[in-house]
Order: sequence, then structure tokens, then C-alpha cells
Amino acid sequence: MAGTDRTRALEIGVGAPAVVLVDPQLGENIGMCARAMLNCGLGEMRIVRPRDGWPNEAAVAAASGADIVLEKAQLFETTAAAIADLHTVFATTARRRDMSKDVFSAAGAAAEMRAAPDQRFGVLFGGEAKGLKNDDIALADAILEIPLNPAFSSLNLAQAVLIVGYEWSRPRLEGEPAYLAMPGTRPATKDELIGLFEHLERELDAGGFLHVREKRPTMVRNLRNLLQRARLTEQEVRTLRGVIASLTRAFEKQD
Amino acid sequence: MAGTDRTRALEIGVGAPAVVLVDPQLGENIGMCARAMLNCGLGEMRIVRPRDGWPNEAAVAAASGADIVLEKAQLFETTAAAIADLHTVFATTARRRDMSKDVFSAAGAAAEMRAAPDQRFGVLFGGEAKGLKNDDIALADAILEIPLNPAFSSLNLAQAVLIVGYEWSRPRLEGEPAYLAMPGTRPATKDELIGLFEHLERELDAGGFLHVREKRPTMVRNLRNLLQRARLTEQEVRTLRGVIASLTRAFEKQD
Repeated sequence: MAGTDRTRALEIGVGAPAVVLVDPQLGENIGMCARAMLNCGLGEMRIVRPRDGWPNEAAVAAASGADIVLEKAQLFETTAAAIADLHTVFATTARRRDMSKDVFSAAGAAAEMRAAPDQRFGVLFGGEAKGLKNDDIALADAILEIPLNPAFSSLNLAQAVLIVGYEWSRPRLEGEPAYLAMPGTRPATKDELIGLFEHLERELDAGGFLHVREKRPTMVRNLRNLLQRARLTEQEVRTLRGVIASLTRAFEKQD
Repeated sequence: MAGTDRTRALEIGVGAPAVVLVDPQLGENIGMCARAMLNCGLGEMRIVRPRDGWPNEAAVAAASGADIVLEKAQLFETTAAAIADLHTVFATTARRRDMSKDVFSAAGAAAEMRAAPDQRFGVLFGGEAKGLKNDDIALADAILEIPLNPAFSSLNLAQAVLIVGYEWSRPRLEGEPAYLAMPGTRPATKDELIGLFEHLERELDAGGFLHVREKRPTMVRNLRNLLQRARLTEQEVRTLRGVIASLTRAFEKQD
């Protein structure tokens, strides 16, 4: 989906967790992770033993413009080194492991991270084929489980990163009520609306549409309710009055 | 990430929205959408004018096992035909359009869909290059905006589908408190824990670690608190008592 506003400064979230990719295989997937990270305002990527070396051209191609994340990415030989400066680390898994460890949902882990802005957090993601090794998980404070459909939870690496990043950035978006976008115009005033109603009803009276006297009040109310529900803009009211005028002229000609 | 439990029946959400891909280009992306859908329990894909024809081998390869979604996918020549039987349709966009229309967040749209289980919903996704055409958006009831990072909101098609599907399935996951996985064992009883504490303290007394009488209560409390915080399993208590015994023997030998 297109839609990047290049006039906006890049927003990299303060306190955003570091994304630690352990034993990633395809450069393409690393690039897609960078893209997913930047989508969510995550800027810090750490890479442990990338199979195909680093830097990686396929990663840049797949990053679709998220080059800044790849350029700043740090390379490590061990998971322990990659997380050395962090305070709390989550290990992502899709399947249950034979380990006694706290398990958080992506939402729960995001809440933990947001609750301690003075701590540095990291999230470990395993390689494409097998996920994290148990030794890597043992280095983490807790498990971050992305359960989804238990019968089909095989998640692309970048998609796992996206879910974690999305949950981290979600409170920014959450609670935003639905709103009506009306670029270049404004809601119609009631006066304008009533002018429209009366215009329509006058023409319907003239055309005989409302000729059954006892049904007229109900029909008028139904039409008014229907048009109210559309929450018309000032411009749309003018458009509709033009429509009525145009239809009426056609009708008059036909007559 | 590996982790699919093939012994589980596929869960396709009842009342899940149809995913309508309009003018998708790469088969690979259609396949990745199918995978993202099945991850979230969405089973119904509708495809309008796929550029590279249908069926598409690249789609199957990229679906990573979500073949069932592709096999059941329906093909349409127009967006209008693809949504004909639906009650309410959201059009996904990343950037603001010049249109007066209700705008929902992914979370808000998911709440709308869940609130009306007797209605059939659909979500339109545009092609990779340009997103939905304004004429397609005009067919929809409302816009579903996935804003993310305003300065970098270019979202892969399958990632947009994943966010929408994830929000739809999220209430299932939400509110699940963090829990401690302890396969094959159980939390230690307080009796077992206190046995561990006293074993440790006995050995520390013997070794002189707790010899400063006025500091002893604080040190003991600190050690007990620290071990409590670990919420040890019965097995771990036995392991730790083994560790203490082992260390003590080493210590006795050194003496």
C-alpha cells in the first residue's frame, strides 16, 4: 500500500525495543523486518550470525526504503553479546517450549515495555526454519507468544516483527474514535439540511410522490432520517440540491 | 516461525470478514495474504482482476501451507461483483483521500465487525503499487486506515491483511494475563521453598557469609525475596538444593 508522507520526519519511537534477529537466513526477510520495524517506529535492529553475511543486498532491496534501519543495524556473534546492554528481553515463540518461564502475549509484552520507559528492552526472533534455540530462550526474561490460529501459526519472520511492533505502537492509535474525513469542506448546518429537505419535499409534492395524505408525514420523516444519517457536508447539500433541480428540469421537459 | 500444531483442526473464524484483493499484482503477495489470513482465522478470499491470472503457482508457493484459502478463493471481474452479497465493506488506505467518508482504525473496524455477528463484512485491499482506486473506495461504507508511522507507512499487502486479521482475532487473545509455563512440573509449595531457604541459610551460616549478626536478618530476607520472585517449581527447588549441596562439598574439600 502506497502512502508514505515524505514530508514528515521519520518517527522512531523513544524507548522502542531493540529487535534482535538470531540466525536469520534470507536477506530478503531481514529487509522485510526492517520495513515492518519502521512502519511501527522501531529503529534498532541487531543481527546475530546472519547466514548469508552482512551487509546484504537482498535485504536492502526488500526494505522498500527502510534503509536507515539496515544502515544502523548492529552485527553480533552471539545472542548474549547482542543483548548485553539491555535490561529485559522477550523471546518470541509460536509453539510451547519445555521450559518454566513467564509467557506474555504480544499485547502484554508491549504493556510491560511501555510501563518502564527507563528500561531498555529487546525482543529476540529466531531464524526462519526453526525459530529460537532453547539456549537463546533461556537468556530471555520471558517468552512472548504470538499464538494466532493454533492450527496454523507458522508466521513469516517479518510478520512476527510486525505484530510485536504493531502492539508496541498500538496505544498511540488505540482509542482514536472513528471520525468522518471531510477534506476542504465542513459538516452542513441544520439550516442547510432543512433547506435541502424542504426543497426535496416541495418537488416531491409537485410530482405527486407524496400525494397520499395520511402517508405523507411518515414518508417525509423516513427521507429526512435517511439524509440525516449520511451526515452530509455543506458541499454535498449543494450537490444534492443541484441533483434535485436537474431531475426536476428533466421531469418538467418530459411533461 | 515454526509452530503449527497439525493435530489441531483449522480454526476459521465464524463471522470473519471476507478479504477482497482488488487488482493484486504478484502471485507471491496473494499467497502471503492467504498465509496471513489463515494465521488469524480468516478463510474467505476474493480476488478482483489479478494481474498475473488465476490460479497462480507463485501464490501457492508463498502460502506456506495455507492452500485451503487459495483453493476456496473466488475470482471476480469487478469490485462491485465481489462485494455484492456483503452488508458492510471497509476500504483500507494508508494515506488520506480527498473524500468525505467515515474513517476507522483497524481496531475500530474490528470492533464494528464483532458487534454485528449477523452481518457479512468485507475488507478491500488495493494492489501493491497504488492501493485502491477512488472508485473502489466509493463503493465501501467506510475507510479502514492503517496509519502506523506517518513518515513510513508503505505497508506490504500481506502485512496490511495481517494487521486487519490480527485486530479481528485480537479479542480472543486480549486480556489473557501473563502466565508461567511449567510443563511437567508444578509450583513449589511454601514448605519446599522454606526447606530450600533454610538449607541455604544453614550453609551460609556454616561458611561465615552471614556472620555479622546485625546484618543477618536483612541479608536473609533479601535472599528469600529474591528466591520468591523466581516463583520456583518443585523441580527447580530440588535442583537448587542439589546445587547447594554440590557447592558445599566443593567448599569442604577446599578447606
